[in-house]
Amino acid sequence: MKTLQVDLGARSYPIYIGAGLHRDAEVFARHITARQVLVLTNDIVAPLYLESTLTGLGGKRIETVVLPDGESYKTIDSAMQVWDRLLRSKFSRNACLIALGGGVIGDLGGFTAACYQRGIPFIQMPTTLLAQVDSSVGGKTGVNHPLGKNMIGAFYQPLAVLADTETLTTLADRELSSGLAEVIKYGLIRDPEFFCWIEANVERLLHRDAEALAFAIERSCINKAEVVSADEHESGVRATLNLGHTFGHAIETAAGYGTYLHGEAVAIGICMATDLSIRLGWLSREDGVRIEELLRRARLPVRLTSALSPHRILDLMAVDKKNVDGRLRLILLRAIGEATLPMEIAAESVRATLEQCLPPLKGGRSH
Amino acid sequence: MKTLQVDLGARSYPIYIGAGLHRDAEVFARHITARQVLVLTNDIVAPLYLESTLTGLGGKRIETVVLPDGESYKTIDSAMQVWDRLLRSKFSRNACLIALGGGVIGDLGGFTAACYQRGIPFIQMPTTLLAQVDSSVGGKTGVNHPLGKNMIGAFYQPLAVLADTETLTTLADRELSSGLAEVIKYGLIRDPEFFCWIEANVERLLHRDAEALAFAIERSCINKAEVVSADEHESGVRATLNLGHTFGHAIETAAGYGTYLHGEAVAIGICMATDLSIRLGWLSREDGVRIEELLRRARLPVRLTSALSPHRILDLMAVDKKNVDGRLRLILLRAIGEATLPMEIAAESVRATLEQCLPPLKGGRSH
Repeated sequence: MKTLQVDLGARSYPIYIGAGLHRDAEVFARHITARQVLVLTNDIVAPLYLESTLTGLGGKRIETVVLPDGESYKTIDSAMQVWDRLLRSKFSRNACLIALGGGVIGDLGGFTAACYQRGIPFIQMPTTLLAQVDSSVGGKTGVNHPLGKNMIGAFYQPLAVLADTETLTTLADRELSSGLAEVIKYGLIRDPEFFCWIEANVERLLHRDAEALAFAIERSCINKAEVVSADEHESGVRATLNLGHTFGHAIETAAGYGTYLHGEAVAIGICMATDLSIRLGWLSREDGVRIEELLRRARLPVRLTSALSPHRILDLMAVDKKNVDGRLRLILLRAIGEATLPMEIAAESVRATLEQCLPPLKGGRSH
Repeated sequence: MKTLQVDLGARSYPIYIGAGLHRDAEVFARHITARQVLVLTNDIVAPLYLESTLTGLGGKRIETVVLPDGESYKTIDSAMQVWDRLLRSKFSRNACLIALGGGVIGDLGGFTAACYQRGIPFIQMPTTLLAQVDSSVGGKTGVNHPLGKNMIGAFYQPLAVLADTETLTTLADRELSSGLAEVIKYGLIRDPEFFCWIEANVERLLHRDAEALAFAIERSCINKAEVVSADEHESGVRATLNLGHTFGHAIETAAGYGTYLHGEAVAIGICMATDLSIRLGWLSREDGVRIEELLRRARLPVRLTSALSPHRILDLMAVDKKNVDGRLRLILLRAIGEATLPMEIAAESVRATLEQCLPPLKGGRSH
């Protein structure tokens, strides 16, 4: 087991990475002092890992909430279901919530913990590669709104992150690739050596080589922890973690939550950010080719497969959290390993990229 | 205009107290740098103060949300209405929300600001005595749940509090008395000299003597700011501000939100806490008489007027935020001016107080 640390003063916490953590009673006991524990999970993860998790929690008063799987359940209605259960069970402000699942469960679990009685302790137990390398670390929690992804939420840090690499053995191939989009992102924004390592090892990762996966998770979490420790509430450098995400979130919302996995939408968004960076003369075409090539090798989409209107995408991008006074700001690339801070970008340039990267709408005109 | 300060490091902010603040363009300009401003208010306050507030905000891009008045609208559904409007208006993370109204608008406005894009700036403009002396200061925000008051929420501090004493001239008598319950509370928990001052000046307050009201608001806010600065997240002394509130919240929930005004339920709750403190031998009967007498003189109820089951009240008290592992904890009194920290209290003692202070259920047994 490896242990990393997210340094946030009084809100610091460890990230544990290792095989078998989801049933590690010793690690649970180290962090959960409350008697009341609610485990939030979904109907894909529950049959695989819930029972052994509960065994590790022997002696606690346990409630479980099992939601259907998928991004379309990351809603205020799902949060209300969790709050209802906590209140019906008379859970106190010292009760602990465990989020056992992927990014949807982690974001939703964190948000319900943040807002129940103005904040109860919670633990992230990410079971997907994407959640282990990205969403479980750093305290961004929230739910989606029909008009924008992650628009309702809170910064709220967990007590600990338990990334059990064993759970990746049961992950669907598409979910594994989705996680690789965020792994590649760290190389792109701040770790060029890691980008080269991924280029050399992407097949090992796709074949779930345990050693390669453990290294990729650890290196990703080191990058994430450094950025979050430097800028918890995203007033500066943390925004670079959102490379490709402004496009990606708009694509997810426009296509309907669940059509693209988060990492798939981010991969397409990274290609759009790459196209725009080249268009503005900041990134070389050669680097652009390398980026797209690595995403393809990770079995990720690099173009939208369905027709979406550029007008609709631009409209959804107008509520991105990085914008100021309604003016669009994007993270772009100056090189592999070097991202810009959010830049105000003219809508015409973004539109040119969208028209380049979106398949034409059937019947001609895009709006 | 008086200015007090809530000291919370990077989250410190001023409380302004004075006449005419709700249309003070200079004070607005000092705190609102964003172009996008949403004003949340209700249909009682809007006809009186919205137009002049908007005049003071000239040059901004303004959206207004006017909710029906009342505690029964302090819900997740109302929060969703505000988030919808913010998103439809494409408001950014630097947009400012102004909560113009009483405790319901302030708590709801603070919560929607806390969770929109994980937190946007907001300003409290309390227009009731209760909100000016208590709920607008200290960053407790939230909405009610059918099973418990303020159960969904966040600690989230405003940029500034603008308490315009002019708005008290239009306040209903019952609302004025409701605010006095919280004013008296400060005397009871930590300021015996202020308690004596209220005993000597309660009629002036009821007659809305401007000087007396300004003094009561200032002294209350000084007390609140000191307690909040010492313990922002209520790990200790801040809980004493909840004297009478565990009973009060249960009464509000059991009777249906809006049956009793918040301060009325708190007044009855303070009498229950007083009865229990005497019952446990911690407070003299003479002090108990003084407390009840002052609440009566402030035209507040000291007993429930409708029949509620002690069993239901106890059941609702079991989800109070001060409880630990589901065990009931209450704030009690050792003297006028001295509250205890939350104490674990046997249910039998609480039941004895409830049976003393509740009118009998029609038809006999209360179980």
